[in-house]
Amino acid sequence: MRVVGVDLGGTKVLARIVDTETGWSEGRAKAQTPRTGPADVLDVVVKAVRSLDGWEEADAIGIGLPGLVGADGVVSRCPNIAGWDNPVAVSATLASALGKPVAVGNDVNCGALAEHRVGAGQGVADLLAVFVGTGVGGGLVLDGHVRSGARGMAGEIGHITVEPGGRLCGCGGRGHLEAYAGKAGLEREIRARGEQGVTSMLVRQAADGPIKSRHLAKAIEADDELAHELLSDAADAIAQGIGNVATMIDLQRIVLGGGVIDKFGDWFVAKINTSNDFGGFGPSVCELRLAERLDDAGVVGAAMLAGDQFA
Amino acid sequence: MRVVGVDLGGTKVLARIVDTETGWSEGRAKAQTPRTGPADVLDVVVKAVRSLDGWEEADAIGIGLPGLVGADGVVSRCPNIAGWDNPVAVSATLASALGKPVAVGNDVNCGALAEHRVGAGQGVADLLAVFVGTGVGGGLVLDGHVRSGARGMAGEIGHITVEPGGRLCGCGGRGHLEAYAGKAGLEREIRARGEQGVTSMLVRQAADGPIKSRHLAKAIEADDELAHELLSDAADAIAQGIGNVATMIDLQRIVLGGGVIDKFGDWFVAKINTSNDFGGFGPSVCELRLAERLDDAGVVGAAMLAGDQFA
Repeated sequence: MRVVGVDLGGTKVLARIVDTETGWSEGRAKAQTPRTGPADVLDVVVKAVRSLDGWEEADAIGIGLPGLVGADGVVSRCPNIAGWDNPVAVSATLASALGKPVAVGNDVNCGALAEHRVGAGQGVADLLAVFVGTGVGGGLVLDGHVRSGARGMAGEIGHITVEPGGRLCGCGGRGHLEAYAGKAGLEREIRARGEQGVTSMLVRQAADGPIKSRHLAKAIEADDELAHELLSDAADAIAQGIGNVATMIDLQRIVLGGGVIDKFGDWFVAKINTSNDFGGFGPSVCELRLAERLDDAGVVGAAMLAGDQFA
Repeated sequence: MRVVGVDLGGTKVLARIVDTETGWSEGRAKAQTPRTGPADVLDVVVKAVRSLDGWEEADAIGIGLPGLVGADGVVSRCPNIAGWDNPVAVSATLASALGKPVAVGNDVNCGALAEHRVGAGQGVADLLAVFVGTGVGGGLVLDGHVRSGARGMAGEIGHITVEPGGRLCGCGGRGHLEAYAGKAGLEREIRARGEQGVTSMLVRQAADGPIKSRHLAKAIEADDELAHELLSDAADAIAQGIGNVATMIDLQRIVLGGGVIDKFGDWFVAKINTSNDFGGFGPSVCELRLAERLDDAGVVGAAMLAGDQFA
């Protein structure tokens, strides 16, 4: 099937034409995500799709976005896109503007689907994909299809508890995986350690601006003590979480991706695999691989979601 | 569909004729499980089935047992049935003896399926059933069907880690849920506390013989300090585990059953629901209910598994 895949993020929109059988894609329309509310955002999406050569021949549109998607293509929450304060009928709005069926999915779930079909998750029935960046997102593919769950929230491995009563998470919960392994949580902890008098290149970096994945990678390379402590804790948290999920759902493979993993994934995967905190039946139960579809997983997965929905 | 359901346990065999649409069952054949190996065990199963009035008219046989079941009906491990040391082709053996198609499932998964179709799990697409007894077993029903997983091991919530490096589990792992909430784990801890000089009616009980659910219930009623401590820890462990699983898979409902829950489930469910350790997004995310099919869940669920397989 020939589908226009759209990756709608907090800062930019990317659209490509995707062959959903092979994952091969062509064309590339890019735009900035407006900060003036969903009507303007969807207008930019429509323009991006229309700017692609041959979009008229596509069978459908698939769009992935960082929000909570209902079964009817209504996006009820989308905290990372400015001005998205109320539920928006994304599927109906785009279908009416573009005259084609539109599938809407969570961007992390789309990424997991792309990895499963044409990336590091090929060859197994089920996959958990974990993306470690500012936060920690997860997408679950069971028997070849995205698991959305009762409320469209399945896969939220960042918000499982690894330490009851532990570090405060961005969501208001305590001891969640994301508070230990996401960059936002790490940055909070780095600043707190700085205030306690800990010296580290990361504390100095945090004083100048946000902590990026490359700063973490550089600090590990330089054998910075705080970096080793916090990122070992992060690896332990991930090991506990993924081990538990793999045991509970009986998964064979987990794919790790996202900015932090891209920068020093081999170090991180080795730390996770040798963690004493590995959950459930331990690391022998499932194989860890690095994500392969770094740049286009969102677009390709969104297209594949539409391919499944309108096959 | 009319199916003979068989619940094969470590001590007894129960067989009934089940209408898989309604869960209604009739007839009742009981036998002791031989301790002389799987050939004798399956022989007793065949005799029990044949002793049921009208078994010849059944469309199929469904059998649940406490083992690891492969997709081909081969049971590779069955530690609770004496002498079951090698993989046994249960499905093929019974089908050849009885002349009917035979479905084989894990007993806990069968129980979860029965609760989902005709018990406390009705009305939702997905269900996690947790059975707290000597150990802690779990069965996962997703979109109306049992999730077996890559190796037939899905649902093992007893072996997810709630406390890395914590109490030793019967499986050899550390900090597993079952070590805190299963009777065997509780008994080990009670004996250890006794050796440390703790006084409690449970310590005295453990000196006389194994701890049973009714001893735990009596100790809670009597406001025994150790009972309250250990069973609050058990509730915290369950709360952490089920909250994490409900968040990860996005479940609406969890059913709790098994001997410990049967004896004082209301106290236990209240403790779990108010636990500070509730995992993931917390207790608001999913509803806890007590199991309803106490006596026949195994038989009914095994029959329903066959109904699904041979529909």
